[in-house]
Amino acid sequence: MKVVVIGGGAGGLTVASNIRKYDENAEITVVTTDSHVAYSPCAIPYVLGGEIGSFEDIIMHEPEDYKEKGINIITESKVTKILSDDNKVEYITKENGNDVKKTAEYDYLVIATGGASFIPPVDGVDLEGVFKVRTIEDGEKIKEWAKKSSKVVVIGAGAIGLETGCELKELGLDVTVTEMLPQILPRSLDPDMAVKVQDYMEKEGVKVVLGKPVEKLIGEERVEKVAVGEELIDADMVIMATGVRPRISLASEAGCKIGRWAVEVNDKMQTSIPNIYAVGDCVEVHDAITGQNTLSPFGTTAVRQGKVAAKNIAGKTASFRPVLNSVVSKIGKLELGAVGLSETAGDLSGIPIVAGRSSALTRARYYPGCKPIDIKLICNREGTIVGCQIIAMETVAERVDTMSIVISKQVKCDELVSMEFAYAPPVSMVVDPVVLAAEDACEKLKNFKN
Amino acid sequence: MKVVVIGGGAGGLTVASNIRKYDENAEITVVTTDSHVAYSPCAIPYVLGGEIGSFEDIIMHEPEDYKEKGINIITESKVTKILSDDNKVEYITKENGNDVKKTAEYDYLVIATGGASFIPPVDGVDLEGVFKVRTIEDGEKIKEWAKKSSKVVVIGAGAIGLETGCELKELGLDVTVTEMLPQILPRSLDPDMAVKVQDYMEKEGVKVVLGKPVEKLIGEERVEKVAVGEELIDADMVIMATGVRPRISLASEAGCKIGRWAVEVNDKMQTSIPNIYAVGDCVEVHDAITGQNTLSPFGTTAVRQGKVAAKNIAGKTASFRPVLNSVVSKIGKLELGAVGLSETAGDLSGIPIVAGRSSALTRARYYPGCKPIDIKLICNREGTIVGCQIIAMETVAERVDTMSIVISKQVKCDELVSMEFAYAPPVSMVVDPVVLAAEDACEKLKNFKN
Repeated sequence: MKVVVIGGGAGGLTVASNIRKYDENAEITVVTTDSHVAYSPCAIPYVLGGEIGSFEDIIMHEPEDYKEKGINIITESKVTKILSDDNKVEYITKENGNDVKKTAEYDYLVIATGGASFIPPVDGVDLEGVFKVRTIEDGEKIKEWAKKSSKVVVIGAGAIGLETGCELKELGLDVTVTEMLPQILPRSLDPDMAVKVQDYMEKEGVKVVLGKPVEKLIGEERVEKVAVGEELIDADMVIMATGVRPRISLASEAGCKIGRWAVEVNDKMQTSIPNIYAVGDCVEVHDAITGQNTLSPFGTTAVRQGKVAAKNIAGKTASFRPVLNSVVSKIGKLELGAVGLSETAGDLSGIPIVAGRSSALTRARYYPGCKPIDIKLICNREGTIVGCQIIAMETVAERVDTMSIVISKQVKCDELVSMEFAYAPPVSMVVDPVVLAAEDACEKLKNFKN
Repeated sequence: MKVVVIGGGAGGLTVASNIRKYDENAEITVVTTDSHVAYSPCAIPYVLGGEIGSFEDIIMHEPEDYKEKGINIITESKVTKILSDDNKVEYITKENGNDVKKTAEYDYLVIATGGASFIPPVDGVDLEGVFKVRTIEDGEKIKEWAKKSSKVVVIGAGAIGLETGCELKELGLDVTVTEMLPQILPRSLDPDMAVKVQDYMEKEGVKVVLGKPVEKLIGEERVEKVAVGEELIDADMVIMATGVRPRISLASEAGCKIGRWAVEVNDKMQTSIPNIYAVGDCVEVHDAITGQNTLSPFGTTAVRQGKVAAKNIAGKTASFRPVLNSVVSKIGKLELGAVGLSETAGDLSGIPIVAGRSSALTRARYYPGCKPIDIKLICNREGTIVGCQIIAMETVAERVDTMSIVISKQVKCDELVSMEFAYAPPVSMVVDPVVLAAEDACEKLKNFKN
């Protein structure tokens, strides 16, 4: 069995190494444009800020590690065409410094082309000093440029923009984050929760400009100013954190069906062409709550999809379930996470919701180091928990995981109240903050019913 | 409505304040032998070690706080008899320094008498320098005595013994923990997990003696030596951490049915006498996995039971569900937790189990401060997850909570593998350690089935 994988990120490499687990004879080839494989793009902001020592550290494996497993990794090479009728791909690779065109045959092809940074079409985005945050190379360039900069504007207040902004602030730069929408983290948090994160960032000295699109970047060769709404902000460095778009052109040209947002796959991660699979940021999936098609551009999703695709290619059965899009981010010292439906998304999808809230502590109140925690729990009108947002200085990821299971198993808020949460003063409260939020939701549901 | 509550711990006070929520006219009286109410006995070890500044800090409320809510708290007073036919209790209280016998009438009585330290009947337990760890008074005595001590023997290697032992070691004392059974933490962890905690403690300099009962304590007035098996260990201080027994004599004399371990209650927390309820360490409950009667002597259980009892007394409906006995403890800097069935308990109950294991990290391996984590996940032969044990330096409680929901909702290990865990390098691994343990369990189940 010959398997070709296009893309060396979390999705592609998971497929490759999992197929190897099930089939020791499969010929597996991974073609990637990148010079590195198996690194963590999500870690780039923390290398910039110095928490992580170097970009070397975030490379989990070298191509040689895969070669030892009999997986052939072809780096810095670009697949130019999928010939789906002939079951082969054409790619351009470097040999002795020259571009060489080659082909590779496959029985199964896996498209794991990921996403590309979306750069809005405004004047000046090609000026020197304007960066995106996607690859290690991007990170290295930012780190160099930051050394000779003092004022940075981050365009886009999603997680990557805020993480990068806070880390550059840590380095002593003057940081302004701008966002077109009227709140930060519009995809993860409701406005009432987002404002808590904004307060934290502003206390840390990061300026936040909301509700204004970037009009243009101004400068001769280097960027000098950013025009945001009617404001002109001085900048000797700009980070474009304006989102990521699925890379779908190869799949589309090959004849794979494209859905509303990205490559369409079934729950086996199979595209409309039976021997072509697709995983990771380039595919669209189903939202477990709304049932609608959505993107799930997260490393964890790519890994779970990669495992499912590998099993199916190896003749086993596995299916990928609709997503809750559970996320977590660390912005400065603050952690925030979300899973399932937000109130905003509920409104947009026409799903009436009830929100329960708690503001409590991560440990017993008398235990040194206990931190404030804010929880917003979203139920539908039947009381079934469908979403949760959490902000605290610690233990947010693990609590989001708990809520991911709760939502996945369709637990109702009055059932959650009766469930067991472990208690010891140094590590938890006798009544967990999640239970307090669920109790609040129960009260509100009662008022709603009366 | 007149309600009398016997006991001012977590269970009794939760009943009292929750009845007040539902019924503003109820006459509520709490009678307690203690001079404090609403403190956290679980926090006593951490005051000893100095993490928490003083015993004052762990008192959450004063009797006056309850009086403001119209709850009458009678401290340092002992109920001597329940006259269940007449719906009243007799108690002895202090007035102007004199013991006075009084009675209180009730429509509903709540027995929340808790547990008492079990002291094994060996010679020397009455010597000076021998302490239990139950009340603030115990803690204060230990703290004083520790100042003039250098060698302490802790008898009993349950959580309270180990927590206390490690905290006294922190103060610079020479500490030996002895345990009759062949492992530490026999109620919470299987031997293979317990040994990891033991290794940690021994590295911290705590001596551990296993598999030997205490024969006697030796000394003139003060304790000087402890005879453990054939060993004689020098000691100028002994902590008896030999367990807690439910206080059931008042309930029993009143005619409430006593079960295998403690006061029998139905799922409304009602005893065999319809207007007498019981909550907390003095009752027995059902184990959710084995179905057997068991104890659940934890603050969180008492609080949940208190809420259920209060609702039922106030004419609402609520039921207490069978327990998974989810626990967490912090021993030195190490956290350990468990929920549901252990392998040992499975063997004892005749439930065949399969264990999945993982040894991983709490955060991305390149992120500074990531800590090793060990997980043991227990499934039954159908693959349903029925138990979990976790050891790490951080985030154990929250992960135990996740597994508590997993077990409660009867998730199978192959379903857990497909569930979402949030990822960001500073706070988690791209594949969660729990998922790794579930994958291991899936493999083992397959081998078992083949």
